[in-house]
Amino acid sequence: MPAYQRIAAEYRNKIASGALRPGDRLPTEQEVAHAYTVARQTVRQGLATLVAEGLIVAQRPHGYFVRQREHMVYRPQAESRPQPASPEMDRYFQQISSEGRKPSQTIEISLVPASPEIAQRLDVPEGQTVVARRRVRSINGEPVNTNDTHFPLDAVKDSDIMSPEDIPQGTNQRLAELGFAQVRAIDEFFIRMPTPEEVHRLDLAAGTPVALHIVTGYTAEGRPVRCTLNVLPGDRHVIVYEREWE
Amino acid sequence: MPAYQRIAAEYRNKIASGALRPGDRLPTEQEVAHAYTVARQTVRQGLATLVAEGLIVAQRPHGYFVRQREHMVYRPQAESRPQPASPEMDRYFQQISSEGRKPSQTIEISLVPASPEIAQRLDVPEGQTVVARRRVRSINGEPVNTNDTHFPLDAVKDSDIMSPEDIPQGTNQRLAELGFAQVRAIDEFFIRMPTPEEVHRLDLAAGTPVALHIVTGYTAEGRPVRCTLNVLPGDRHVIVYEREWE
Repeated sequence: MPAYQRIAAEYRNKIASGALRPGDRLPTEQEVAHAYTVARQTVRQGLATLVAEGLIVAQRPHGYFVRQREHMVYRPQAESRPQPASPEMDRYFQQISSEGRKPSQTIEISLVPASPEIAQRLDVPEGQTVVARRRVRSINGEPVNTNDTHFPLDAVKDSDIMSPEDIPQGTNQRLAELGFAQVRAIDEFFIRMPTPEEVHRLDLAAGTPVALHIVTGYTAEGRPVRCTLNVLPGDRHVIVYEREWE
Repeated sequence: MPAYQRIAAEYRNKIASGALRPGDRLPTEQEVAHAYTVARQTVRQGLATLVAEGLIVAQRPHGYFVRQREHMVYRPQAESRPQPASPEMDRYFQQISSEGRKPSQTIEISLVPASPEIAQRLDVPEGQTVVARRRVRSINGEPVNTNDTHFPLDAVKDSDIMSPEDIPQGTNQRLAELGFAQVRAIDEFFIRMPTPEEVHRLDLAAGTPVALHIVTGYTAEGRPVRCTLNVLPGDRHVIVYEREWE
């Protein structure tokens, strides 16, 4: 095994075993180079492997740190099933939900041509104008995910969904008041590396994949009336569902 | 913008716009170096960016190719709700399911000490012996995901769940016959880069993140009787749920 891989393996194992804990600083490049009697460039190559794997982050000029993985519960069912149905799910929330967080968001409204992925799901011609309500959601000032919802223009025209303000009852309830109540949704998750725009919008470190969560909401008549693209950084979320046998 | 970033941006855009399609070969390093009048090392750095983003794969000695993304539908609800409930979900399957695939699997059974993540979910002491049924599932000979299910030893001892053979009715049904019918489950998804073992087991290319899907199944009495860890490579799956408003 080349030296850089041995260095990567040693620190990977220390993180897996808990000998190094989230937030801990690794020894400096110089210290590692000395311990292995190798060039500093070799150490850098070894640690770069762990950065790409998402296990450590490089914070110049302070050094390398074990990544802090604080996973908030992301529960897609929350919008259609407000309360957990089982005591197991209640316990789940008690164990891993966090408290004392300050949420905030930015909202931008625009009229955009439907991209192929939006057009297919909203069942409109590609390029047709749709309303995009783009949000970045933050906790304690740090971005946690993005939520870009697209609506057919005729459904939301002249409504407050087209204004860049918070809608206290939520857009789903507002859409229902406009005559487009959703009765079901399809959730899709694609797991991939982020685009440069997503890295920028969500301030992602190297080695951070995302889930693209696409929600298509349907009325009782089967008409798709909204398509949401949520981008969920892997280091900030655990996606959770509860299901029952039928 | 440095030259390597300009090169990355050009090919990223060509892939996003569809000018380069899945499976297409990129020009050679030499051709790109000539077009940009830069060193071949610069071209390599630019293309390495796109490899890390999962957009292209390097297949030495043949060159760089746009990644083929064939997403099979992965539907966690299938085990607890065999049929889609809505015409929208039926349409979804018709659009994106694939045909003519030859599934196969390998099965290994072992007795292992419960890791912290298994112990917590099965509600047993860490290190207690549990039964692990580890499978690699392949389509047309290529691995698509791994499925490692853990059972409390007392629940499955002396049953065929402990033999490394296919169980025609499935392990959930078999578990029910043994007196441990599951009535609900909690699904968790963690999005991260793969471990070296996962890269090996699933033959993953660089820039391929995974979803770790953890399923904990409960009896009517609330006892957790199995905990499954599924590793789903992002380039091979789309995870899909159907939900109704309540």
